[in-house]
Amino acid sequence: MPTIETTTFSESRLRHFCYQIFKAIDLSDAHAELAADVLLSADLRGIDSHGLARLSGYVRLYEAKRVNPKPHFTIQSDALSACTLNADAALGLVSAPFAMDIAIQKAHQTGIGVVAVQNSNHFGIAAYHALKAIDHQMIGFAMTNASPLVAPTFSSEKLLGTNPMCYVFPSKKYPPVVFDMSTSAASNGKLQVAERLGKPIAEGLLIDQHGRDTTDAADLKTGGAMLGLGSFAQTSSHKGYGFGAIVDILCGVVSGANFASWVPPFVDYLGVEQKLVGKGIGHFVGAMRIDAFRPESDYFEAIDIWIERLKSAKRIDEAQKVIIHGEPEHECFNYRLQNGIPLVGSVVEDLRKLGQKFGVQLDF
Amino acid sequence: MPTIETTTFSESRLRHFCYQIFKAIDLSDAHAELAADVLLSADLRGIDSHGLARLSGYVRLYEAKRVNPKPHFTIQSDALSACTLNADAALGLVSAPFAMDIAIQKAHQTGIGVVAVQNSNHFGIAAYHALKAIDHQMIGFAMTNASPLVAPTFSSEKLLGTNPMCYVFPSKKYPPVVFDMSTSAASNGKLQVAERLGKPIAEGLLIDQHGRDTTDAADLKTGGAMLGLGSFAQTSSHKGYGFGAIVDILCGVVSGANFASWVPPFVDYLGVEQKLVGKGIGHFVGAMRIDAFRPESDYFEAIDIWIERLKSAKRIDEAQKVIIHGEPEHECFNYRLQNGIPLVGSVVEDLRKLGQKFGVQLDF
Repeated sequence: MPTIETTTFSESRLRHFCYQIFKAIDLSDAHAELAADVLLSADLRGIDSHGLARLSGYVRLYEAKRVNPKPHFTIQSDALSACTLNADAALGLVSAPFAMDIAIQKAHQTGIGVVAVQNSNHFGIAAYHALKAIDHQMIGFAMTNASPLVAPTFSSEKLLGTNPMCYVFPSKKYPPVVFDMSTSAASNGKLQVAERLGKPIAEGLLIDQHGRDTTDAADLKTGGAMLGLGSFAQTSSHKGYGFGAIVDILCGVVSGANFASWVPPFVDYLGVEQKLVGKGIGHFVGAMRIDAFRPESDYFEAIDIWIERLKSAKRIDEAQKVIIHGEPEHECFNYRLQNGIPLVGSVVEDLRKLGQKFGVQLDF
Repeated sequence: MPTIETTTFSESRLRHFCYQIFKAIDLSDAHAELAADVLLSADLRGIDSHGLARLSGYVRLYEAKRVNPKPHFTIQSDALSACTLNADAALGLVSAPFAMDIAIQKAHQTGIGVVAVQNSNHFGIAAYHALKAIDHQMIGFAMTNASPLVAPTFSSEKLLGTNPMCYVFPSKKYPPVVFDMSTSAASNGKLQVAERLGKPIAEGLLIDQHGRDTTDAADLKTGGAMLGLGSFAQTSSHKGYGFGAIVDILCGVVSGANFASWVPPFVDYLGVEQKLVGKGIGHFVGAMRIDAFRPESDYFEAIDIWIERLKSAKRIDEAQKVIIHGEPEHECFNYRLQNGIPLVGSVVEDLRKLGQKFGVQLDF
């Protein structure tokens, strides 16, 4: 492995920088703080592809007039347990937490609350939003559709996003169990890292423009497409295609946002379609009260047993433990909060340019 | 491909036979009809592994006193939009439709209804239950945990079921879009067919007792394990493990049923654990009213556009079209309803033995 040079910044320094940039693109104080919190949570959790590395992307959307920095949120089709939020072209970083708060409020009343979001933009890591439910001892979930980059089985056309599905479950003895998974075989971030380093990727992640498996990450930008989870027909790629499609329909078709190839892309190498079928991109978030299903104490006892059973699973290689989803990220969060966040050179460079543009200092 | 000899039976003949067998194991008239309907729907839809092929399995559960043929269903922890059903050791074939009816009723009131089921047994195909929502123009979903056969990433131990996640979406011009996918790389049914024919399976579906990839389906019964969707660590098997785990927690931990290795198995080569952590196996079903999110007419216009966009996806091979989930099954349903259901020799043999045991004729 070639080592990647990084510079480590304190969490508070990056948070303040991020806040200042969001202020510079006209977000309100509260929204700039919130947006910075979402991005920082990605870097703290070790999901480097979704943190500060994307700050310039959000600025680019603002400059392209695709983001409304002072959105007026409205509720549509309100039922007791479900509704749709029109995010008024806000950053998903601020609309998704707002939607999640409504879902939690509804769950307090009826046991479950679900909010679809239309007219939004990229929302960062799904886990941030779903985890809001944990403060209320609830189960949370969050999904979003995204830049069309993934081809359905038997096609070479980029028609679906990496469309993550995230569920979080509170526990008593352990950190919350956090499932936050895109429905593609690779994460887009992993491909970006391989491309930057010029390293070949594994088979089963990407096809070229002719639909042939490729190990060159650069093919994604020259007519290629990502594969759905499952990779090949014989290893059930139709299931990954299916999970991605479920997320696309819930977030796009059900909410009134765009879907499939019409989703306005976050990545800069794809354009926005001329004629759209909905408003912005869409999310689908929700919260469920545990005591709507069983007494909380019974649930907490059971989830801890579940975690312990999986932790004690027989290992293939003694040196490689079985992972409980969310645990590595939880550990990384605590470590980086204490020891700072390492950023790779290209991201630091990117942030410096942003700082220069808006007159904000990255370093003291 | 070796051809498999089949005998074709009319749908009505098999339905009546199935009904009679369920009557013979003491189900009420209504439950015997319902259970037969669930199994027949699998055979009609072409999901041969989950239809009549499993009838003797349900009888075996009954004979092992693991099924209560005359269950008394009770509701626990009832909230406006969510509750848990104690299925009193019923067949999942009858408890899951009952739970789905409650979910639909709640969705009529609040926009969404979710029912967890504990103390149940194998529920057949998830699509049957989720599709009940379609009659009410609602979105439906259904999940279940199942016999522990799948190893988490980095483990060789069978700890999770094939744990299917099913979502169905009504459409206007087309059949409902039906996503009904297990979260494992292979379906158990596919492995059974390969084992019966002595054919090697693809790589990435199964590991042997030492955690090594194997193409011999028989290894599953000698200490091996199925792999989660994604197959290998480098093609994101942690995501398939994650989706399977989400289903296990919702169906087991949230409902109060068993979970992980404690799920009482349906397959005959695994035993029931001595000390359990919950009641029976669990399901998690729900329904969502479309107009809780947006006007129905807008949704129906959008879902048809979604279907048409995916249908028109650029093909890698002109001869192989891109599949809309549920469409092949819908076509198979109509064909077999007209032309009969082909059963392979071993299933016919199995049914004849059942018929002899209970004095029920398979043929006229």
